[in-house]
Amino acid sequence: MYGVILAGGSGTRFWPLSREEYPKQLLKIFGNQSLIQATLSRIADLIPSNQTYIATNPSQAEQIKFQLKPSREGPHFIYEPMGRNTAAAIGLAATYLRKRFQDGVMAVLSADHFIREPQVFIEALRLGESLADEGYLVTLGAKPTRPETGYGYIQKGKPFPNQPGASTVQRFVEKPNRETAEQYLKREDHFWNTGIFLWKISTILAEIKQFVPELSEGLKEIEQKIGTAEEAEALARVYPTLPSISIDYAVLEKSDRLAVISTDMGWEDVGSWSALDEVIERDENGNILTGNVVNIGSSNSIIYGQKRVVAVVGLKDIVVADTEDATLICSKDKAQEVKKVVEALKGRNGDEHRVHRTVIRAWGSYTVLEEGRDYKIKRILVNPRARLSLQMHHKRSEHWVVVAGTARVTCGESVYTIQANQSTFVPMGVKHRLENPGDEPLQIIEVQSGNYLGEDDIVRYQDDYGRVEAKKG
Amino acid sequence: MYGVILAGGSGTRFWPLSREEYPKQLLKIFGNQSLIQATLSRIADLIPSNQTYIATNPSQAEQIKFQLKPSREGPHFIYEPMGRNTAAAIGLAATYLRKRFQDGVMAVLSADHFIREPQVFIEALRLGESLADEGYLVTLGAKPTRPETGYGYIQKGKPFPNQPGASTVQRFVEKPNRETAEQYLKREDHFWNTGIFLWKISTILAEIKQFVPELSEGLKEIEQKIGTAEEAEALARVYPTLPSISIDYAVLEKSDRLAVISTDMGWEDVGSWSALDEVIERDENGNILTGNVVNIGSSNSIIYGQKRVVAVVGLKDIVVADTEDATLICSKDKAQEVKKVVEALKGRNGDEHRVHRTVIRAWGSYTVLEEGRDYKIKRILVNPRARLSLQMHHKRSEHWVVVAGTARVTCGESVYTIQANQSTFVPMGVKHRLENPGDEPLQIIEVQSGNYLGEDDIVRYQDDYGRVEAKKG
Repeated sequence: MYGVILAGGSGTRFWPLSREEYPKQLLKIFGNQSLIQATLSRIADLIPSNQTYIATNPSQAEQIKFQLKPSREGPHFIYEPMGRNTAAAIGLAATYLRKRFQDGVMAVLSADHFIREPQVFIEALRLGESLADEGYLVTLGAKPTRPETGYGYIQKGKPFPNQPGASTVQRFVEKPNRETAEQYLKREDHFWNTGIFLWKISTILAEIKQFVPELSEGLKEIEQKIGTAEEAEALARVYPTLPSISIDYAVLEKSDRLAVISTDMGWEDVGSWSALDEVIERDENGNILTGNVVNIGSSNSIIYGQKRVVAVVGLKDIVVADTEDATLICSKDKAQEVKKVVEALKGRNGDEHRVHRTVIRAWGSYTVLEEGRDYKIKRILVNPRARLSLQMHHKRSEHWVVVAGTARVTCGESVYTIQANQSTFVPMGVKHRLENPGDEPLQIIEVQSGNYLGEDDIVRYQDDYGRVEAKKG
Repeated sequence: MYGVILAGGSGTRFWPLSREEYPKQLLKIFGNQSLIQATLSRIADLIPSNQTYIATNPSQAEQIKFQLKPSREGPHFIYEPMGRNTAAAIGLAATYLRKRFQDGVMAVLSADHFIREPQVFIEALRLGESLADEGYLVTLGAKPTRPETGYGYIQKGKPFPNQPGASTVQRFVEKPNRETAEQYLKREDHFWNTGIFLWKISTILAEIKQFVPELSEGLKEIEQKIGTAEEAEALARVYPTLPSISIDYAVLEKSDRLAVISTDMGWEDVGSWSALDEVIERDENGNILTGNVVNIGSSNSIIYGQKRVVAVVGLKDIVVADTEDATLICSKDKAQEVKKVVEALKGRNGDEHRVHRTVIRAWGSYTVLEEGRDYKIKRILVNPRARLSLQMHHKRSEHWVVVAGTARVTCGESVYTIQANQSTFVPMGVKHRLENPGDEPLQIIEVQSGNYLGEDDIVRYQDDYGRVEAKKG
């Protein structure tokens, strides 16, 4: 079996903890692992990492790799040049898989789902594999535990003989209203549509060809270039022209090869801050409290603090999420409107919708501590044995003070080593490089000085991570 | 007429904007001026600054002086070594005034009151002066505009002939319950007790002698030392032993020389976050919004942001106050409980109850940008022509990067000048001094390095502000 993990996401629903370049799947607020880490852990025994593919966009890939630390064997990455909905993403993944493995069953998973009972989930995948092998398009259904209006539903049809839990599909249902959801809960033949699918590579590509021929044509054009020097160009050219449509609407609602597996695996999509109540245990006052929080008499509230003090007094049904550069305070019943905040921020000068103050890079991370007129202060962390690119800035000079570890500094023609409590100066216009030659993390404080301090003032001459015309670092 | 401004305050009620060393009187959230600035502005035409005395404690004095910029002429400062309630503070001020001026009418004002109609207030002070001159203890009463349960009341007695607005006092009343407060509002003979008083120096000292003889004895002991080398010692020794009692309870409730002036001056004590609604105009949704706020559908809420993004969604009757190191989110009807937050913080390691991240000093200010293991980063602002003490640290070295202005640096035997984008290093154990020789503010970024970074690791050799054994700077 092959695994395809859809790992996109706009980072709006859990803002300010999630950001455009740091979406929900990377958050660790649901348990010890992030959701994408948990997704890989769950399938690890069933699908080896060299048969696992993560479909994501390039701006999120660096953060995902930082968490998953993939090896040469896997998991592998498939890059969507832009979001084109699930039909295109699944079609692209199936195309890559066909090129490499010809055929076989692929499981399509989301990187940001929560599953309370991983063992039940694994059994459902096993059952799904055998049905998929017979040519079915299999969807996992989750037994409803409440009249949820935020999920789509599947009504099951006739049970499969000798396949307990598997049925044909009567119909797919869009998100219902409250009354209808309550009926579904009583009837016991409606299941939450988890968006977790199993099918053969050949089946899904044939169905796409039948129901969405223009998508099939585009994928074929990409397939011809996979493994050639023109692959990236073809992907960048063709992918944005593919129809943007969900796999449910494009194929599942039209196909007659459907099967659904009814499970009771404690599945949740966790679509907003208020949905945390469904997956995290609350204290005796109904609160979820994390971080440096002082609580005086609040109840049924969700408070996510970090290092800063967050004091809450007499709150009821309120969500508070505090980060270094932004704080959200939201009525629980309005949690769906957090995306409006992100929309509002996009229209502004700042970066609070897009990235955290701490930005992960292949070599480590940096945190903007303060920006003032003509100066900017960063804390820079360089991983052991890693180094930034050989680079130059036209409009700023940089003062570096080492606070932990050892730095090897290239500055113009000189190469030298400085330790904690030593500093150096990189003048404007001089080629330089920062490297951690040691086995401990290197931490420096950088004071940038100049009248333009944008991240785009960088010329790269050499880079270990292939970013000679890319982003900072 | 002499002015005595009581400027103490614990800084709890408007936390996190107010702090122990930065109480409510210094906040500018009520208008263009801080409350203490507005207090001085209001009386400026009536009482010259050389006849104005500010009674405060030493830890708050630096911040008050930073705002008021007193000259040699005044206003003058009287330092209470510790808070001993209003009877002791007023008695001490009267004692200083008697020593300098023998007798005369003194007006006792609070630094943190809000008065909407300053002209009405001034007229009341004028009337009060003439009554005080006749030997009365005069209290200003404010006409109630709502059934307020947070203020004490005065019931007026018989009107004074030919003194419209002035009456004898029938009785003082403690904070009433809601029902009683509603009766008071209807009866029109009950006024809010503003705690603004006028009396002759000789009258109040005689009353204190009659009703609180042990306070009178203590004040006499201090009076004998005023102007001598032993003044500070006597103050520090005697003041803490004075009875801690309010002037209302100690004198006013017992005296038979009382008068009250009924005013309609728009007076408010603004005793908590929720009381802001009484003094600041709200927008069409009943909100007060300040700072970098994104609001999606909130109403009747008070949101104080600063530079960081504060996003609020669907809030009702909530107070949010965001500062660099702490955020408060409080149900409006629980605003009185903010002091419990401050109590909780006092039991912790942090400084968030005591000071802001930006601390005002006589020479300028500093802001802690980050504290990490073995390092601390500060932004330091030095006023034009000002300098820090000549000092030394046993356990840390300091890297200074100038980001604006010019610094004259003393480091060991060397004295040199550095400009924006230049840096220098002060090794551990070396005497040093930072000075701004220019006419523009000097701004430096300081990276401290060492395994102990407390503000108390400082040895001062010379200081322009007389702090050779005192605090940082």
